Amino acid sequence: MKIRAGVFGATGYAGYELVQLLRRHPSAELVFATSEQSAGGWLSDSYPCLDDVALVRADEAPLGEVECAFCSLPHGASMATVRRAREAGVRVVDLSADFRLPDAAVYERWYKTAHEAPQLLAEAVYGLPELHREAIRGAQLVANPGCYPTSVILGCYPLAAQGLLEGGHVIVDSKSGVSGAGRSPSPTTHFCQVNESLAPYNVGHVHRHIPEMEQELSRLAGQPVRVTFAPHLVPMSRGILSTVYATVRDEVTAVAIDEAYAAFYQDAPFVRLSGRGELPTTLQVRGSNYCDLGWRLDERTGRVIVVSVIDNLTRGASGQAVCNMNLMFGFPENLGLDFPPWQP
Amino acid sequence: MKIRAGVFGATGYAGYELVQLLRRHPSAELVFATSEQSAGGWLSDSYPCLDDVALVRADEAPLGEVECAFCSLPHGASMATVRRAREAGVRVVDLSADFRLPDAAVYERWYKTAHEAPQLLAEAVYGLPELHREAIRGAQLVANPGCYPTSVILGCYPLAAQGLLEGGHVIVDSKSGVSGAGRSPSPTTHFCQVNESLAPYNVGHVHRHIPEMEQELSRLAGQPVRVTFAPHLVPMSRGILSTVYATVRDEVTAVAIDEAYAAFYQDAPFVRLSGRGELPTTLQVRGSNYCDLGWRLDERTGRVIVVSVIDNLTRGASGQAVCNMNLMFGFPENLGLDFPPWQP
Amino acid sequence: MKIRAGVFGATGYAGYELVQLLRRHPSAELVFATSEQSAGGWLSDSYPCLDDVALVRADEAPLGEVECAFCSLPHGASMATVRRAREAGVRVVDLSADFRLPDAAVYERWYKTAHEAPQLLAEAVYGLPELHREAIRGAQLVANPGCYPTSVILGCYPLAAQGLLEGGHVIVDSKSGVSGAGRSPSPTTHFCQVNESLAPYNVGHVHRHIPEMEQELSRLAGQPVRVTFAPHLVPMSRGILSTVYATVRDEVTAVAIDEAYAAFYQDAPFVRLSGRGELPTTLQVRGSNYCDLGWRLDERTGRVIVVSVIDNLTRGASGQAVCNMNLMFGFPENLGLDFPPWQP
Amino acid sequence: MKIRAGVFGATGYAGYELVQLLRRHPSAELVFATSEQSAGGWLSDSYPCLDDVALVRADEAPLGEVECAFCSLPHGASMATVRRAREAGVRVVDLSADFRLPDAAVYERWYKTAHEAPQLLAEAVYGLPELHREAIRGAQLVANPGCYPTSVILGCYPLAAQGLLEGGHVIVDSKSGVSGAGRSPSPTTHFCQVNESLAPYNVGHVHRHIPEMEQELSRLAGQPVRVTFAPHLVPMSRGILSTVYATVRDEVTAVAIDEAYAAFYQDAPFVRLSGRGELPTTLQVRGSNYCDLGWRLDERTGRVIVVSVIDNLTRGASGQAVCNMNLMFGFPENLGLDFPPWQP
Repeated sequence: MKIRAGVFGATGYAGYELVQLLRRHPSAELVFATSEQSAGGWLSDSYPCLDDVALVRADEAPLGEVECAFCSLPHGASMATVRRAREAGVRVVDLSADFRLPDAAVYERWYKTAHEAPQLLAEAVYGLPELHREAIRGAQLVANPGCYPTSVILGCYPLAAQGLLEGGHVIVDSKSGVSGAGRSPSPTTHFCQVNESLAPYNVGHVHRHIPEMEQELSRLAGQPVRVTFAPHLVPMSRGILSTVYATVRDEVTAVAIDEAYAAFYQDAPFVRLSGRGELPTTLQVRGSNYCDLGWRLDERTGRVIVVSVIDNLTRGASGQAVCNMNLMFGFPENLGLDFPPWQP
Repeated sequence: MKIRAGVFGATGYAGYELVQLLRRHPSAELVFATSEQSAGGWLSDSYPCLDDVALVRADEAPLGEVECAFCSLPHGASMATVRRAREAGVRVVDLSADFRLPDAAVYERWYKTAHEAPQLLAEAVYGLPELHREAIRGAQLVANPGCYPTSVILGCYPLAAQGLLEGGHVIVDSKSGVSGAGRSPSPTTHFCQVNESLAPYNVGHVHRHIPEMEQELSRLAGQPVRVTFAPHLVPMSRGILSTVYATVRDEVTAVAIDEAYAAFYQDAPFVRLSGRGELPTTLQVRGSNYCDLGWRLDERTGRVIVVSVIDNLTRGASGQAVCNMNLMFGFPENLGLDFPPWQP
Repeated sequence: MKIRAGVFGATGYAGYELVQLLRRHPSAELVFATSEQSAGGWLSDSYPCLDDVALVRADEAPLGEVECAFCSLPHGASMATVRRAREAGVRVVDLSADFRLPDAAVYERWYKTAHEAPQLLAEAVYGLPELHREAIRGAQLVANPGCYPTSVILGCYPLAAQGLLEGGHVIVDSKSGVSGAGRSPSPTTHFCQVNESLAPYNVGHVHRHIPEMEQELSRLAGQPVRVTFAPHLVPMSRGILSTVYATVRDEVTAVAIDEAYAAFYQDAPFVRLSGRGELPTTLQVRGSNYCDLGWRLDERTGRVIVVSVIDNLTRGASGQAVCNMNLMFGFPENLGLDFPPWQP
Repeated sequence: MKIRAGVFGATGYAGYELVQLLRRHPSAELVFATSEQSAGGWLSDSYPCLDDVALVRADEAPLGEVECAFCSLPHGASMATVRRAREAGVRVVDLSADFRLPDAAVYERWYKTAHEAPQLLAEAVYGLPELHREAIRGAQLVANPGCYPTSVILGCYPLAAQGLLEGGHVIVDSKSGVSGAGRSPSPTTHFCQVNESLAPYNVGHVHRHIPEMEQELSRLAGQPVRVTFAPHLVPMSRGILSTVYATVRDEVTAVAIDEAYAAFYQDAPFVRLSGRGELPTTLQVRGSNYCDLGWRLDERTGRVIVVSVIDNLTRGASGQAVCNMNLMFGFPENLGLDFPPWQP
């Protein structure tokens, strides 16, 4: 039996990739795909598809015919659709930020918009499989993590959870490919502005992905963890590399760090550790659902530096969403996701 | 009257650009250019030159006919040539690392090679014009700074010199274009390995540019400053962006930081401040001798984040070398260097 | 039952991709992979593999345990290995140029090397499935076409085969990504030399892929067809776009051209026609086995201009090789190759 | 004495570069710069300028204070401004297409817009210095050539003018960087659409630059020359490479071709010939006013293949405009334009 699934918002980068993953998933069947702008047309109007998919308006989507809905809509626009799907008894993976923060007031402070479905926040599970595998299995609503938080939380998780961190403050320097800025043309995404340039933005405590990072890391560390965050746009299409700087407790050795990572990720099919070996690059995870991790301990200063790489569209959005669906419906975590990174 | 100048090592990226800058400099004249591999040939065998330049072996260079020699040779290979030039009474700008660290033992620890001209270390001036303008004016031997240290020290200088830093530790996350890796082909510089990838290397306390940074920042701060350094290779040809994370003393305000930068750089023709305005990008300095600086104060954590961008080959090597020559010979700092960044 | 297969030359770009395709192929099993340089090690020493593969020397390869061998070796080096495999009764797909030209003298003229296995030339089938599907099904030795010829022949095939061409001369302007130049570092593949540059090479009648093109097009046209060929290197990793200029006979209309293409490719799962609609781009086939075709008829001059795009490593090498294996062993042409292009 | 000059349309790529060239030109002075969108602001709002320039609306421009006006406006929008400038007695270099075609009817057919200043067409000189040097010297109105025609006409000029061409038909395959598509964001210029892609457009007899090419080549050849033209967009910011395929008369030898080029360009400071040597790349002219040319004769087919490279913004627009100003005002052709290409 196959999971019958629908995708809201199929013409964005993440939505398109979701459609492709579902079309090739051995235990899923795509029932509908929506687009407000391209409704009545085909996905191939926007992308070179193999097997074409008709697009409908979101309010025409046959919710009664699916067991699982993916919402790949902008934050703010997603919550009403999620509510409608949940009212129809459909399990949901939401790729927007709308259900990642359990406290509506925190959401409203960062996103400057009122929450229209606060009653659903309690049932939403933060969909980072390595942290919340069991909760996701039973979830009706999964909030798929942001791309930056995925790389950062996976990078720090063993340190925070094992109590190795000193202080409660981490510095995150992230670098992202341009697809993270979305598909709409803007001066920021013009080839001549991006090419041969490196551009920081939203540096400090302003990027909206910060509360997710602080929420998860604080929970794991058992104490408030604050994040200083500097994202940068890099002249490439895909990929995120986050370099995380943290202070470890005095007695922590390099071996202890190695062991913490090895222990926490021993059963994680999508985390690969290079540890103190060669540091990972974004190319080695491009197009895949992997998160590759390496680290260095600067013993002089007690700083650990962790390098975490993911594909921002796969692991940072659509691949992780499919992984969450797999868990929700009792399939192996990596079903339909076991393809290699794009090389070269 | 024109300064008669020679360039040792004219076929590397920095050496080639030096030749071009000198050919167009209103008060300089290029007398010779050397290359061991291409001696007997022309610079146009390696680059599309406007006006061609004959290449000679270094030991054939007519040192007696020049007042100023530029050494654009690898570290280790430079010191013997510098010594020879100094013995001939020629003033030298050395672009290698050989005379940047006044203590030969420190040099030998980081560069794993014996220093062959330690007697010259005392007369060498670290050639960062904004810090050492007066000393450079009188110098016989100027050690041109490394590309990363140029971006980092200019980024931190007002904070360190004004005593605004707390702790004595800064974290530097640098991103460099591939020309920083030199002109020799290697797996690391293969297009298919660089393109669509972001690659960290030498993360921690291992990169050889660290002692320069620590030396200058410690001097300015009046206390030891330690640097944690993570350089990354980015898929672009030119440019360095350094993101510097430091803790400021409790009472330091954003306005105080603004004022420190404004005061220290008020007479610096090649430093442009965007302060708390838009953060700078590498594109806006590409091909120029500028260093553009912006910053953010995260008041919650007392962290200041400084973004510093330079062109690694111009400000990070050849342009800064010409600037040093200008100072040494009594010319305005920006003579022959007042060209705009490459746009787009 | 699965085809047991081996790969000679697994660490080049095409060989690596072959290994990945075979590992995921539903009806194939990888038995061995060879590398002279990395024998004794693992494929993951060169690439970020999902499931690692041990590398052996070619002369240690257990030919007795396979039904199908892929030779992804340089021309000249391939023929001895192919001969050995054939002597062991193994069916072979050879990705080199060694068996593409049935006349050893022609081979030796273009490749400047003696042919060591001329007795096998008669049994070799040129492995372009759309042209030679039936012959491939029965073949013991398939010569996988070159990347440029694949794009060009598929682009011209209906015109030549239908006798629409006037004159017997086509002009081919091809543009290729850098992976076509192979994985060895060289000045030509250095990022700073490729980036922001466009470089023609081997222009005229000199590129070694020309005899393949002329051979196949002449055969189809029933008259000698001569090719003027200008390849160019483009700053991207993958993809070939060939723009073909040909003269059609006077009475040929745009509709007749449309019909010729539609008729010839009606059963071809890997050829997509956009015809007189939007012209194809390399991005829309990247990472896939597709060849996308569009055309324009300039009625003033009787010129038809065909644009043909492929992925040079997939359709131009490893994907086409797997397609040939499928045909040889009675499987559907697209088995294990039905994945979408990499977007974006 | 300096030429007092103004720039209409200073915020586009070509207009911005014009401003920079004029600011550094030893015999020119920038009096005004206009922008409808940014009037009242500064050029540095759009670009990282060295010395900032105030922007005014076009109708506020003090035409009475200048001797030379540059119009860097879109076609259709330029003609009214040119007329106004000419009525004020100002000599004009127009970078749009509005005065390149002497026949208003031809203009209207290709550009689908009525010509508002047909009375000025007779006085307009086509501003390709190598062809029309004398006429430009005396001109009141110079029509600066399009970027593609500049590369193509310079590439064919000696062949056409010497009567070496057979037939009267050339095929032009051009490849352009993305800055040629202008500064406005669009799906076509989105980084993720351009990167790793190669895209043909306007293939056949449809691109608006064709009549310019046919006009000049026909004039030189003394017979109608028709052009089949296929432009392509390449993932790089700057540069055009045109590969031109033409048939030469039977008796024409490679030496005769060499001699024709050498003779025609012997006094041209901005044309560099590599002839039958290494073919030129766009990188070797990037940021400069050069046009570099190489060629191959395929003796089997009597085809000559010419490769012509320029920087589309400098030689293809602003640099050529300054060159025309130099000629109009009696200065050396290369005054203020003798800077080297950007390397690397």
